[in-house]
Amino acid sequence: MTISPLVDMTVESISPLDEEAMAAARARQDTLTKPPGSLGRLEDLSIMLAGMFGDPIPRINRKSVILAAGDHGVVAEGVSAYPQEVTPQMVFNFLRGGAGINVLARQAGAEIVILDAGVAADLEPHPLLRSVKVAYGTANMAVGPAMTREQAIRCLEIGIEAAREQIGEGADLIACGDMGIGNTTASSAITSVATGADPSITTGRGTGLDDPGLAHKVEVIRRAIEVNKPDPRDGLDVLTKVGGLEIGVLAGAMLGTAASHRPVVVDGFISGAAALIAWLISPTARDYFIAAHQSVEPGHRVGLDAMGLTPLLDMGMRLGEGTGAALAMHLIEAAALCLAEMATFAEAGVSERSEDEE
Amino acid sequence: MTISPLVDMTVESISPLDEEAMAAARARQDTLTKPPGSLGRLEDLSIMLAGMFGDPIPRINRKSVILAAGDHGVVAEGVSAYPQEVTPQMVFNFLRGGAGINVLARQAGAEIVILDAGVAADLEPHPLLRSVKVAYGTANMAVGPAMTREQAIRCLEIGIEAAREQIGEGADLIACGDMGIGNTTASSAITSVATGADPSITTGRGTGLDDPGLAHKVEVIRRAIEVNKPDPRDGLDVLTKVGGLEIGVLAGAMLGTAASHRPVVVDGFISGAAALIAWLISPTARDYFIAAHQSVEPGHRVGLDAMGLTPLLDMGMRLGEGTGAALAMHLIEAAALCLAEMATFAEAGVSERSEDEE
Repeated sequence: MTISPLVDMTVESISPLDEEAMAAARARQDTLTKPPGSLGRLEDLSIMLAGMFGDPIPRINRKSVILAAGDHGVVAEGVSAYPQEVTPQMVFNFLRGGAGINVLARQAGAEIVILDAGVAADLEPHPLLRSVKVAYGTANMAVGPAMTREQAIRCLEIGIEAAREQIGEGADLIACGDMGIGNTTASSAITSVATGADPSITTGRGTGLDDPGLAHKVEVIRRAIEVNKPDPRDGLDVLTKVGGLEIGVLAGAMLGTAASHRPVVVDGFISGAAALIAWLISPTARDYFIAAHQSVEPGHRVGLDAMGLTPLLDMGMRLGEGTGAALAMHLIEAAALCLAEMATFAEAGVSERSEDEE
Repeated sequence: MTISPLVDMTVESISPLDEEAMAAARARQDTLTKPPGSLGRLEDLSIMLAGMFGDPIPRINRKSVILAAGDHGVVAEGVSAYPQEVTPQMVFNFLRGGAGINVLARQAGAEIVILDAGVAADLEPHPLLRSVKVAYGTANMAVGPAMTREQAIRCLEIGIEAAREQIGEGADLIACGDMGIGNTTASSAITSVATGADPSITTGRGTGLDDPGLAHKVEVIRRAIEVNKPDPRDGLDVLTKVGGLEIGVLAGAMLGTAASHRPVVVDGFISGAAALIAWLISPTARDYFIAAHQSVEPGHRVGLDAMGLTPLLDMGMRLGEGTGAALAMHLIEAAALCLAEMATFAEAGVSERSEDEE
């Protein structure tokens, strides 16, 4: 499939994990001063990181959160508990440092890159805001495609460029986060198309719908899929027809990170939908995805299962913004640190397991 | 029940969580710029922290890991895959900074306090090692009590003093960790006695027993309980008869932390057994326990269920040393930081939920 020179080149750069580095990391784990396997998923994670970095002892020095905002024309159907004006208001909150992701990224020592991918309002220029606005929100997917194919490609390219830039500046770990009133609706539609699961299974309450609101949302998603008939084998087509501008940027950032052989921390449901788009475009990119947490949104697990990803955390969260990803960064760094810094049995003079166990 | 003046005074100081501070924290959570409840367990945790600290906006400034080591006479029965000499060797590894807990405590910004509560060897003096040795390991509980009642009381007192000292020096969050070849055997015995669960349910492979080794371990634990007949309503009796010196110190540290109205992060299976002892001595102390992670050791869940605790993490870990607790510290701090530092809707000028949801 040909999308654009930049996207194609990026996809071609995504290679499987480095088996040699993984074998070396696995061998080192078994020499560290602990019973073999006793660090559980931290050991598995460290070996995966070695494979991503192509380095038996990967080091995470700098971290970034790529946070993309965009609006959704489908809010005209009444699918969100919050008004659309909350998207720009929350962008302003990010810029002032008062949102959940600001607090959690500060704690994790991660920089935040804030991208206006498609907020449906003119935002005042701000030194921390990157205006890469592809459109003033998507069109209403319940009556036609959410965006044009050209817009979808532009979103992917913006995300690729953002990831490349961060990694070029030294970031070793990229987290993805989203803001956009109405974006659980797009994410449910993407998840249904990508996995074949019925919208009744992939749709949740978003920011807080009641029962009739939820039933209406399912019906809107069903209609959007029927009207647009996205091709489930074509990630770009899914993004174009039932996606979101911020979701496209995040999918691009995931492809760009994977192409640079670095891990991308996939936040929750919306980032998970972006990951599905990236995975449809490049199945190998998936090897670089680390699922941060299990969102309360029911469609999240459906998407993760399709990609074969198991989340690190299950904290009952559903905020988005990259908050779950920022939390998971601590665990990912812990995995890399244990592999790099723990003493071996030989270095520490600790006896290994006795041969004749009783 | 009267144990000793220090233990009695400590138990009397443990008061239920501060309901007023919790109500204020809950009210503040609902004004922060996020859909109500969308931070899930981080919100619940922040409210519990408020109750523990007696402060609507609790702040965690300093953190300590209390790491206690002790040996177990029951290793004479052949219940561990590693030789007893590993206990002092690992203490040396802690002192040199090469163990898993060293790496993870450094990452979490936590100080480690290393206590020789009962290693079965003379350890060279070291500036970082506190020699509070109560005995050269416990006696073999398969043939009689693990320790005397006086030794058990001394362990509790040492732990109380260690926690008090750390909190006196400014620590706001205490994690507990253990080292001791043979201590899963004691922990399974404690868990069986405290919960009534059969040893076949509470016993696992520890550092790596094979099937016959596991069956033998279950039989040894059964024998220890039959020989000693510990009183399940009497935490001190359980500690005396089937406990461990390091386990007693950790139980004391948990009581001491609760008495100072600060949270104690309970690591895995061995710390969970210490928590059961502390809980039997003071049921209210439990309100100050935060279960860090779900250990692979099967008895861990049994003990947590009895206390009504739900672990934060499930990483397939079984290393002990406080490693799971150090990891969980990031999540606990995140909870406190979100409550303290997120902007309110009013501060950020963000619209709240619309009244008439569709």
